[in-house]
Amino acid sequence: MVGNRRPAGRPRTRILNREVITDAARRIITSDGVPALTMTRLAQRLSVTPSALYNHATSKQEILRWIVDSIMGEVDASAFDTEPWREATRAWAASYRDVMVAHAELISSVATIEVIDSPRTVAMYERVVSGLHRAGFPFEACLPFIAALESFIYGSAFNELAPADIFDPGDEGDVAPNFVAAVEASQRGRNPREINDELFDIGLTAFVESSAERLGVC
Amino acid sequence: MVGNRRPAGRPRTRILNREVITDAARRIITSDGVPALTMTRLAQRLSVTPSALYNHATSKQEILRWIVDSIMGEVDASAFDTEPWREATRAWAASYRDVMVAHAELISSVATIEVIDSPRTVAMYERVVSGLHRAGFPFEACLPFIAALESFIYGSAFNELAPADIFDPGDEGDVAPNFVAAVEASQRGRNPREINDELFDIGLTAFVESSAERLGVC
Repeated sequence: MVGNRRPAGRPRTRILNREVITDAARRIITSDGVPALTMTRLAQRLSVTPSALYNHATSKQEILRWIVDSIMGEVDASAFDTEPWREATRAWAASYRDVMVAHAELISSVATIEVIDSPRTVAMYERVVSGLHRAGFPFEACLPFIAALESFIYGSAFNELAPADIFDPGDEGDVAPNFVAAVEASQRGRNPREINDELFDIGLTAFVESSAERLGVC
Repeated sequence: MVGNRRPAGRPRTRILNREVITDAARRIITSDGVPALTMTRLAQRLSVTPSALYNHATSKQEILRWIVDSIMGEVDASAFDTEPWREATRAWAASYRDVMVAHAELISSVATIEVIDSPRTVAMYERVVSGLHRAGFPFEACLPFIAALESFIYGSAFNELAPADIFDPGDEGDVAPNFVAAVEASQRGRNPREINDELFDIGLTAFVESSAERLGVC
């Protein structure tokens, strides 16, 4: 911090910018969930007045968009620069799912927030679309493919968060003999992590191959 | 209410049961979200003491399970009793998605809560598994098929809730020419509802047909 010391006797003032605000807001959400994030509480956390905060961010929605963009920056789409599209899609989808699992409380925000003013998110989509288009996807097929995959990725992240015995019917099993048989058959000798990975793989393969066939992409 | 009047002069006491508690808890969640549901607040809402509430429900988690089960009772799986499995799967998945859209604030609870002590949920799964098994699905293939479809259904519900211009990159578009081309190509002359329905259809068809092929089911 040499050369950046505040003058003696001047009160310490917090420098507000997108990164500082985003970090503080993420900490509130991590501890207490998205509904706990309010402009008032965020201003308190930053030790600034609400009006100082409003000078930098117009709304809670804008701050949520900053948070989502910072999270999307963790998703690795780099395989689209070098790998064939099938492998790149798998690597990207697996990274995306892992990031969603790590930020589970924000999945619904990620799924429903606009990408406007989100440089990292836009950079990610540019990489994915460029890779798909180079592989032969027409432009009009790129977003439907991406959005359908994203639906599956968000859902798979929830699957990952579900308890291993989510399908255990307990006493109700007495009236559901086929369901009980299916639960027992699917758990035989396998751990839930394996099962989830298999589910994710089944879904991805289904998407990738049906899209390839429908679009005539090799 | 003839024959059920309270004796004159006795104070009105709230009769607590699973249904009354579930209804009150759903109202709290609808207005303020899942994190707002606490045993203390629920007891206030029901005008009972927390200890009276704890006589009926052991935890917030148990009450959330009751809520999820009441919502799952709205999902229509009846097509599995009469229709071929492909049509039944489509009808069930569409109903499931619509119910999730109507209760968006509870999607993550639905996705991660155990089915134990949930008679309506178990009855739904029994219907689905029975239909799939009659059509030739081996028992061990039923839950992987259902869980992968559910992932897609939850994600699709989020897609439905997203704003129509979610992919609008704004100023960032300058550095993302392929992404912008894809956004423009996919929006040409179509409304978002149509696009979402098409996405849902693409994903469902991919699942259904790849599963049919993999399992050798007609």
